Amino acid sequence: MKLTIAQLAKRLGAELVGNGSKQITAVRAVETADEDTITFVTDPRHIPKLKNSHAAAVIIDRAVETLEKPQLLVKNVNAALIETLNIFAPKLKPPAEGIDPTAKIGKDVKIAKGVSIAPGVVIDDEARIEENTVIAAGCKIGRNAKIGRNCRLDCNVVIYHNCIIGNNVIIQANTTIGSTGFGYCTIDGQHKLIPHNGGVVIEDFVEIGANCCLDRAKFGNTIIGAGTKIDNLVQIAHNTVIGKCCLIAGQVGISGSCKLGDGVVLAGQAGVTDNIEIGNDAMVGGQSGAFHNIPAGKQVFGTPATDKTEAIRIIALTRRLPKLVNEVKKLTARIERLEAAKDDK
Amino acid sequence: MKLTIAQLAKRLGAELVGNGSKQITAVRAVETADEDTITFVTDPRHIPKLKNSHAAAVIIDRAVETLEKPQLLVKNVNAALIETLNIFAPKLKPPAEGIDPTAKIGKDVKIAKGVSIAPGVVIDDEARIEENTVIAAGCKIGRNAKIGRNCRLDCNVVIYHNCIIGNNVIIQANTTIGSTGFGYCTIDGQHKLIPHNGGVVIEDFVEIGANCCLDRAKFGNTIIGAGTKIDNLVQIAHNTVIGKCCLIAGQVGISGSCKLGDGVVLAGQAGVTDNIEIGNDAMVGGQSGAFHNIPAGKQVFGTPATDKTEAIRIIALTRRLPKLVNEVKKLTARIERLEAAKDDK
Amino acid sequence: MKLTIAQLAKRLGAELVGNGSKQITAVRAVETADEDTITFVTDPRHIPKLKNSHAAAVIIDRAVETLEKPQLLVKNVNAALIETLNIFAPKLKPPAEGIDPTAKIGKDVKIAKGVSIAPGVVIDDEARIEENTVIAAGCKIGRNAKIGRNCRLDCNVVIYHNCIIGNNVIIQANTTIGSTGFGYCTIDGQHKLIPHNGGVVIEDFVEIGANCCLDRAKFGNTIIGAGTKIDNLVQIAHNTVIGKCCLIAGQVGISGSCKLGDGVVLAGQAGVTDNIEIGNDAMVGGQSGAFHNIPAGKQVFGTPATDKTEAIRIIALTRRLPKLVNEVKKLTARIERLEAAKDDK
Repeated sequence: MKLTIAQLAKRLGAELVGNGSKQITAVRAVETADEDTITFVTDPRHIPKLKNSHAAAVIIDRAVETLEKPQLLVKNVNAALIETLNIFAPKLKPPAEGIDPTAKIGKDVKIAKGVSIAPGVVIDDEARIEENTVIAAGCKIGRNAKIGRNCRLDCNVVIYHNCIIGNNVIIQANTTIGSTGFGYCTIDGQHKLIPHNGGVVIEDFVEIGANCCLDRAKFGNTIIGAGTKIDNLVQIAHNTVIGKCCLIAGQVGISGSCKLGDGVVLAGQAGVTDNIEIGNDAMVGGQSGAFHNIPAGKQVFGTPATDKTEAIRIIALTRRLPKLVNEVKKLTARIERLEAAKDDK
Repeated sequence: MKLTIAQLAKRLGAELVGNGSKQITAVRAVETADEDTITFVTDPRHIPKLKNSHAAAVIIDRAVETLEKPQLLVKNVNAALIETLNIFAPKLKPPAEGIDPTAKIGKDVKIAKGVSIAPGVVIDDEARIEENTVIAAGCKIGRNAKIGRNCRLDCNVVIYHNCIIGNNVIIQANTTIGSTGFGYCTIDGQHKLIPHNGGVVIEDFVEIGANCCLDRAKFGNTIIGAGTKIDNLVQIAHNTVIGKCCLIAGQVGISGSCKLGDGVVLAGQAGVTDNIEIGNDAMVGGQSGAFHNIPAGKQVFGTPATDKTEAIRIIALTRRLPKLVNEVKKLTARIERLEAAKDDK
Repeated sequence: MKLTIAQLAKRLGAELVGNGSKQITAVRAVETADEDTITFVTDPRHIPKLKNSHAAAVIIDRAVETLEKPQLLVKNVNAALIETLNIFAPKLKPPAEGIDPTAKIGKDVKIAKGVSIAPGVVIDDEARIEENTVIAAGCKIGRNAKIGRNCRLDCNVVIYHNCIIGNNVIIQANTTIGSTGFGYCTIDGQHKLIPHNGGVVIEDFVEIGANCCLDRAKFGNTIIGAGTKIDNLVQIAHNTVIGKCCLIAGQVGISGSCKLGDGVVLAGQAGVTDNIEIGNDAMVGGQSGAFHNIPAGKQVFGTPATDKTEAIRIIALTRRLPKLVNEVKKLTARIERLEAAKDDK
């Protein structure tokens, strides 16, 4: 794909400042862009880097007067960047519509029009796949599971029985949805599995990374709210309910029966203990362990996680412990001298 | 499935207090139970919640006199709960006995009666599958691996060559058993893989979650003791030996050549460094890092993990550091005044 | 496989001290070796253990005069150990050359000679597999992906489109290469996925464990340098570039756009925040969180990670906090007495 800068400006609805005749073939970061590519600036602090960038042009939300490069002025750089990336995306052949002959489809399965079922897929009885959904090679769809329309299940995804996936959901390779949760009763020293009669409900526009595990509920459902995005290798335990538009980064683990509000952000490798509530727009820092309820809007850090500002202050103070110990030692000596002086009298 | 309360009481061997004529269709938690469902109380602290619960009845180990709801009195609520959940479990068609024609079975493979081998399964030469075991779609069983009877391997599980799985073992989707461990010798700056001639032995009644990795041993075996339960996304490295009836929660990582006793509990995201021993019934807290041997029965917390009570006390004290720093500052001022007073004389 | 000690010495080019006539069948650790096996010592501190070892002989780099066992003297015990393990390795039938009839091969796929493609493998259009590479059952190779020669992809590995795998690469079961990274722009409260036009490049002699996730880049490539070894359940995010001969242990998570030098070691469950640089031969401790750039050669520990020696000192001091608090309390009392004495006058 090649476009002139002017053509791209037109497609983005951008105001072009400078010469639009040069052809570009891709979009790149400021540091790695070359003369055939366009770059972008989402943060005004990066404007100085533009001077030394080899990029042919820049997508930006304000004109930079001193810059010699052509500029494409847009209201929302992020939206324009996504559109530009889509324009230059490698053209992948759309997956073949229909059911590959090596797929194994159970009884009473309903498959809507426009669906693509790749080789080696196994769909159990009574499952239902809505329009235009793509099930990649090696996926397994359990009995009576429902997959909405416009979904994309990448290779080797496993959906257990009775799970419900909404519309426009993406699930990446090797992810497991609906495994039995880790719920045991210890009776006479033996751990007895508690049957998990519930399921998993994944709402519309959820996107889930690769190699994740979302466990089914004991009763009711484990629920992922609409628009929530989940990174790779994330564990979400039984009966947990996650709100809308949350961001859950890589290797996060959420224990059972938690309740997360909307817009919650969990940074990489964070952990959430069971049965706690996290309010809307709260944020748990990287590698932090949420052991108690977190009110809406609060940012926490550390294990156990506490108010982020306070946690950082405490960390700074622990680093000054050698100094503090030394100070106390010196004070002790001074007191000894004072005591000796008193005794002398 | 519908049962009257009286019918359920009879099946559970429970003493019925109150009217048993109402029909129920499921069991639910106290908070979410409705008029068609029964609930349960395992912890007497939750008895007060029963008043406002919509549940039609309750399974409990002591009669609550003030309660208007019908009560099913049992000795062990957990055992009764498991039985009740099994009664109301969604009825799944048992997997078809026999070998699906798309499965690929190697030479000299022994498959006992009652075994179910689903589509796309690959079983290499000389493997052996005992009675009534269910191998779900997409599983791969390596050369000379042995799977005991009454096991359930969910979709896409991979068992490498020579691994031995006992009886009544459950392994959930996308789990890998018998991958080569992370053992390298660095020779002239290059990391050379140490061949892993050993295997993995999983004893009876072990249950393993989804997307786990259990590595094979360099020599001898990585061993998971009978009755141990492992959650999702757990890593168990080469040559580690785990005792009986341990509980290993989600995203735990156990390094190589560790030795865990019986009844050990590792909470979520805990880590265990290589070559250490953890005694019977010891407990490692969530996100904690066991860097040293842990004696039997001990509970540890933190990274590096120390005695849990002490670790919590230290955490509380670090949070009081701002106060301590301030106290030391004030003491310094008071000493200065004392010193000045002395000098005045 | 059986060899006399003398035969093994000859194959290793070792100097034999003692009687070489006994037959051995395996190599084992000092503690578990029996009379039919040979053991080894890589660390002179373990020499005393040899006395009580049942091993028939020992591979060692210096003669131990007091030892009655036959000794095989070699320059590099690790290299000799690897060779010995290879000699005694269980003999696995090499995978069948050629393409299994149940594999699904797309258009314009190039498969070189000596390649083995197992049952149920799906290879999309325009992919390329070089000589002697083994693709195990259930693998999926995306459109236009390239796999070099002498590679081994274990069961159910998923390689997305356009990814490039070098020569002599091993990727273990259920690992995902080239999934879309976790990159979102939030526009009007909705998280919009940033298209990931880039790929993943894995250089020669890289080895990757089971159930890992390596995300594709937004632009350019996520790169794993030659000779780097990666353990199980590791997450490597979009656009991260890793140098040569690094060691990345189990459950490590590396966020996006990081740059690691050569020879970097990340211990188990370590995390690396996005956009940071880690210099050559730096080392991040277990469960530690690298939140800032780390200079070459530096060892760090803790969350946030700091200089390892300093971090350990601080941890030791926090454990003495109860003592420090007590000291300050006592000093306060002494000052009070001094003040009282002064006032008395």
